[in-house]
Amino acid sequence: MLKHNFSAGPCVLPQEVFKKAADAVLNFNDLSILEISHRSKDFVEVMEKARSLALEHLGLTGKGYTALYLGGGASMQFLMVAYNLLENKAAYLDTGTWSAKAIKEAKMFGDVNVVASSKESNYNYIPKDYTVPTDVDYFHFQTNNTIFGTQLHETPDVKVPLVCDMSSDIMSRQRNFDAYDLIYAGAQKNMGPAGATLIVVKDEILGKVSRQIPSMLDYKVHASKDSMFNTPPVFPIYVTMLTLEWLKANGGIDWVETLNKEKAAKIYNEIDNNPLFKGFVTNPEDRSIMNVTFSLHDESLKDRFDTLWKEAGINGLNGHRSVGGYRASIYNALTIDSIDALVATMKELERTA
Amino acid sequence: MLKHNFSAGPCVLPQEVFKKAADAVLNFNDLSILEISHRSKDFVEVMEKARSLALEHLGLTGKGYTALYLGGGASMQFLMVAYNLLENKAAYLDTGTWSAKAIKEAKMFGDVNVVASSKESNYNYIPKDYTVPTDVDYFHFQTNNTIFGTQLHETPDVKVPLVCDMSSDIMSRQRNFDAYDLIYAGAQKNMGPAGATLIVVKDEILGKVSRQIPSMLDYKVHASKDSMFNTPPVFPIYVTMLTLEWLKANGGIDWVETLNKEKAAKIYNEIDNNPLFKGFVTNPEDRSIMNVTFSLHDESLKDRFDTLWKEAGINGLNGHRSVGGYRASIYNALTIDSIDALVATMKELERTA
Repeated sequence: MLKHNFSAGPCVLPQEVFKKAADAVLNFNDLSILEISHRSKDFVEVMEKARSLALEHLGLTGKGYTALYLGGGASMQFLMVAYNLLENKAAYLDTGTWSAKAIKEAKMFGDVNVVASSKESNYNYIPKDYTVPTDVDYFHFQTNNTIFGTQLHETPDVKVPLVCDMSSDIMSRQRNFDAYDLIYAGAQKNMGPAGATLIVVKDEILGKVSRQIPSMLDYKVHASKDSMFNTPPVFPIYVTMLTLEWLKANGGIDWVETLNKEKAAKIYNEIDNNPLFKGFVTNPEDRSIMNVTFSLHDESLKDRFDTLWKEAGINGLNGHRSVGGYRASIYNALTIDSIDALVATMKELERTA
Repeated sequence: MLKHNFSAGPCVLPQEVFKKAADAVLNFNDLSILEISHRSKDFVEVMEKARSLALEHLGLTGKGYTALYLGGGASMQFLMVAYNLLENKAAYLDTGTWSAKAIKEAKMFGDVNVVASSKESNYNYIPKDYTVPTDVDYFHFQTNNTIFGTQLHETPDVKVPLVCDMSSDIMSRQRNFDAYDLIYAGAQKNMGPAGATLIVVKDEILGKVSRQIPSMLDYKVHASKDSMFNTPPVFPIYVTMLTLEWLKANGGIDWVETLNKEKAAKIYNEIDNNPLFKGFVTNPEDRSIMNVTFSLHDESLKDRFDTLWKEAGINGLNGHRSVGGYRASIYNALTIDSIDALVATMKELERTA
């Protein structure tokens, strides 16, 4: 490991994945992984393994779901979700910047009912007191808000199809994934590098809107071609497959959820007990176990603290401009050692301030 | 080099690019290139260099063009071109499978006038006897048809905006690029690995259609954010930058065009002079210098020839299923040594058949 990388995404991946990925760039079955045909037997195996591992980790194998890896990022899904599923009206929960972007795109395709929003307090909590109308085509929300450090820990109990952006917490913790009808996630947090997006869709919800859908935006087209309608992002998918293999070999989501909770608890504990720091999220129950947002009570200590964590080999700790302060993104591959390094700098600041 | 890789794309890239890419996966300024933030100074420099090198190679620096790298592949451009530029009517030239796909997507957005097609003869020539109406929003065509091995060597002399898919011959030869209003190309032939698409657009042609464009499909949105509206495909863009640097260091498009013509001439010369082989393309003037399609007169020699080229360490020579026979894709990074290896097997077949 070169640095303790707390970047919000793209972010740290397992060290053995970096090693295997570099090896494959030099030699993957007698070619570079960068020069193999996506139609080659070798890459078809990679794609199929990446698709099946995603369903396996989520407990959705054999339950009528299809996994796809597409280019374009989760932002493209804001659009594709609405193109494919929004016939008349949809409900959206507004918990952050990405929710707002998803809402904006959906409005081009139908009525959008924003059931609740925490925008008025800069998204520092997850709204819970809302009702989702029963006549909407679907209810859309984000499970984790990378920028603000909030996380929705319970799956909403509603009677309409659930569509969910899990970009920043997929594969990090268990949920009742089979309650969801469509899950999407940019790979570049817990699954792989930037350049691929996972879509897991329940087959039966597709094909119900009346509009004509462009081929590249049509989930049914991609599903009918086993996620190979056009040239897929070969290398990002390969690295995603490696990362999902790493997760499986270590014990899967159950294993990493325990680890992630331990990691998060260590930092939140320090924030709560160190008089120099305060958390950004108002309700402790809404705190994210992926992105920990906090700041100094006394901004005059900023230079001293920044020097301390940089000297400790920590990278990517600055908060997003919408929030300020600090953000420790502690995705699956970040080790306890990195957490300990950060906590040590916080303690050191307290000791020397 | 591990094999002589004649794959149609993804395809061979320079050996030094593979080496540098593997190094960056392990260590790129003290992090893996796979874990760096796309907002980091280091990656912003990569993106800006990749964008400016594209314009520089095409001779379009300072001429009112913007270069973008987006995910999704050239197939996404079939849709985005129409979304952004097709108000009423567009003209399309049908020279192959990819033309037909582009036409299909455009028809959702306006009238499409297919000015000519060589479909009736399985696209084995480039139609030249056609008229482009002057009242269309643009004229769309492909310069090179990967599957069929045809290439359009002259830029059509028309009075409407030119929109061009150069996926399989961009950066391989000079053209009067400033005659074009929008050029797009999947990176995975002459520029980089799968997962990024270059778009070079003349700024003044944007913003003229009346429809509302979803953010991710709007060239103006991507241009206004310097191709960073959302998380870009970091690694594919990095490798593209490395490949464009390699091209520049060696002498640019002028250098590689001479090399590519020499490579193509060697194989076409063998096809024309070896009595066992025949070319697929009917008009010699339409022959591609990127994809050379040919077959055996006598199919009973197939097993013998396949054994010969496989024993010579050649990969990816099988023709596309729409054409059959063989296809030698001889992109920029394929060396003369690989060409010689192929020609030697063709001669060996003749000697021993």
